[in-house]
Amino acid sequence: MPASAIRRLVPFSEAAEAQGTKVYHLNVGAPDIKSPSCAIDAIMDKCHNMHHLSYTNSAGLLQLRKDLIEKYYKKIGIDIDLSEILVTVAGSEAFATAMQIAADQGDEIIVIEPFYTNYNTFAFLNGITLKAVPTDIRDDFRIPGIEEFEKLYSPRTKAVLISNPCNPSGKLFSKEEMLQIGEFCRRHDLFLISDEVYREFCYTDEPHFSAMSIPGCEQNVILVDSVSKRYNLCGARIGCIISHNKDVMAAALKFAQSRLCPPVLGQYASIGALDTPQSYFDEVKAEYIRRRDCAVDALNKMEGVFCPRPLGAFYTVVELPVDDASSFAKWLLTEFRVDNQTVMITPAESFYKTEGVGKNHARIAYVLEVPELQKAMAILEQALKQYPGRV
Amino acid sequence: MPASAIRRLVPFSEAAEAQGTKVYHLNVGAPDIKSPSCAIDAIMDKCHNMHHLSYTNSAGLLQLRKDLIEKYYKKIGIDIDLSEILVTVAGSEAFATAMQIAADQGDEIIVIEPFYTNYNTFAFLNGITLKAVPTDIRDDFRIPGIEEFEKLYSPRTKAVLISNPCNPSGKLFSKEEMLQIGEFCRRHDLFLISDEVYREFCYTDEPHFSAMSIPGCEQNVILVDSVSKRYNLCGARIGCIISHNKDVMAAALKFAQSRLCPPVLGQYASIGALDTPQSYFDEVKAEYIRRRDCAVDALNKMEGVFCPRPLGAFYTVVELPVDDASSFAKWLLTEFRVDNQTVMITPAESFYKTEGVGKNHARIAYVLEVPELQKAMAILEQALKQYPGRV
Repeated sequence: MPASAIRRLVPFSEAAEAQGTKVYHLNVGAPDIKSPSCAIDAIMDKCHNMHHLSYTNSAGLLQLRKDLIEKYYKKIGIDIDLSEILVTVAGSEAFATAMQIAADQGDEIIVIEPFYTNYNTFAFLNGITLKAVPTDIRDDFRIPGIEEFEKLYSPRTKAVLISNPCNPSGKLFSKEEMLQIGEFCRRHDLFLISDEVYREFCYTDEPHFSAMSIPGCEQNVILVDSVSKRYNLCGARIGCIISHNKDVMAAALKFAQSRLCPPVLGQYASIGALDTPQSYFDEVKAEYIRRRDCAVDALNKMEGVFCPRPLGAFYTVVELPVDDASSFAKWLLTEFRVDNQTVMITPAESFYKTEGVGKNHARIAYVLEVPELQKAMAILEQALKQYPGRV
Repeated sequence: MPASAIRRLVPFSEAAEAQGTKVYHLNVGAPDIKSPSCAIDAIMDKCHNMHHLSYTNSAGLLQLRKDLIEKYYKKIGIDIDLSEILVTVAGSEAFATAMQIAADQGDEIIVIEPFYTNYNTFAFLNGITLKAVPTDIRDDFRIPGIEEFEKLYSPRTKAVLISNPCNPSGKLFSKEEMLQIGEFCRRHDLFLISDEVYREFCYTDEPHFSAMSIPGCEQNVILVDSVSKRYNLCGARIGCIISHNKDVMAAALKFAQSRLCPPVLGQYASIGALDTPQSYFDEVKAEYIRRRDCAVDALNKMEGVFCPRPLGAFYTVVELPVDDASSFAKWLLTEFRVDNQTVMITPAESFYKTEGVGKNHARIAYVLEVPELQKAMAILEQALKQYPGRV
């Protein structure tokens, strides 16, 4: 099993912090946004007079599934019934389950690079090969024509996997791109695994276009979603898997039964979170737009740096004037300090399959408040000037 | 993926309940015992003034790992350090991880039947073959001589897997049995995956003998444990995987990183639970002994029924005078009523690998209070008299 390129740096950041260095963490998507109070209150309400904390249905609490359908999915135009949704241990389990349902050992799944590095992990664990459609950072990670997908297609191809908005690039798929991918999946009878855990983190005026809305793709689409991420309750570990395909949901239920049930306290928090007012999301969105603009503007002002302006999630992939972003990221943690402070970034090479691509790319998570983010950017700018491997 | 024999009955019990029939659930190990108040209080304390619920370390909260080591494992004579424990999403994830670490696709694992049916599921998912050592219900499920293990050994054998105390039989392994299995694992350089999630549910005066205490097996043993089960917090979904083997723990960490972190609210509950006084366990133990004796005595008084008296967990496997325990279990739910009440039991055939064995066995979970359990036993006794497939 491959070691995570992201995690490989953790010992260096821990060592820096142990020495008293302040590390600005731009490396992980761990937001500091307040959780909705209705979610926390729901946990406490449930704990008052709780006799014992028992298992729930493997598919999740009936009330949570009902509330997700009525209070959330209906509102965003996704029409599903109780047999088409199953609560999972966060988006991670939903994703792992979707991949195992879609493909067997030896099968192939088409992804679009750059892609979330854990897709590699799950593919490896299940003996699945990922084939990557290339995109160009200089072209805003635009999805290429369908001929690029056709080139990768083989009889062993079982699914296309997208993340929309995308971790790591922040790319938001247009309706046209989605329809094109849907048409490809229909033509070859492939699953379309759509990871939409960042759906509520979109910075456009148009609504997010879900894979569930692609006409004629009802039997192809497996939606991977997160509840805990949406409400800044990451630690609650609640997500869901959704599909109109009855066979998919029957298989998902078998996986779910093998682990008994999703975490119950997180399910209570999620039921409470579904009463979060729209104003909460409006504020979160405005905050992330401020942070994104702060980071992207600062990055593009640095000499030799290129950064697209992402339309979703809270990440951006940036091209750096360095020989190797992994070496640079390590150097930041081990050798570089400004007033005993440094920054931690994620080298992006492992988000690409294509050999050699992404070597000078890094992922920046803009999950700090603007004043902190400004300081982190100033440190990064100085670092790029001093880094011995600058090109 | 095979459908769960246990779950296959759920639609029938739901239908019965929808018609207003009271179903005594002897089928699932979902205890009704009160959770320790210190665990529930810990959740509420954490929720007061909580800003947001963030991820934890993939290995679990440092405080939880430290407290598990100091307040629990040290007390029961298991001496481990921080690098030898990793918090998981309940015992289920600990088990799935252990199996994936121990064996690759095509490998074999030796189990002792009857065994927990989800072992089959995880083996199937990972292309692992289970080979089963037979035991005899009439001989108290005694572990046979090591020659029975040797018969199953092949160069593809990677591990021995035990559940102690055992779900489904309630069997408690003697120290001698453990030493014998340990010796076999050492000789063939096999992992010994020891599922000890029911360790605190032992009904003898001698302490439980953990696989971690087998001399010379330090590099072989992978301990699968549950925190949430121990404290009647099943829904919290917290367990752990423990090993002195550094390679095992490094691999476990990679698996853990791919799913980011264990449920955080459950981790807080677990930290609180570690302050549970011994008197709580004494009361729980006394309660389960009452329930066990109530069930076992009643079962053995029924004509044609044979039931050993288990020394651990809260299950017993019973031999019934029926043609097929699956048909009987279905008939109970669909056709049999006493005052509009019936019982639900688990047919035990799927706990066995050996063809034909266990067809007339059922697992009874004694997880109801004694008065309810007495009523359930009276219904079962009548049912056995009237069942058309009685033999």
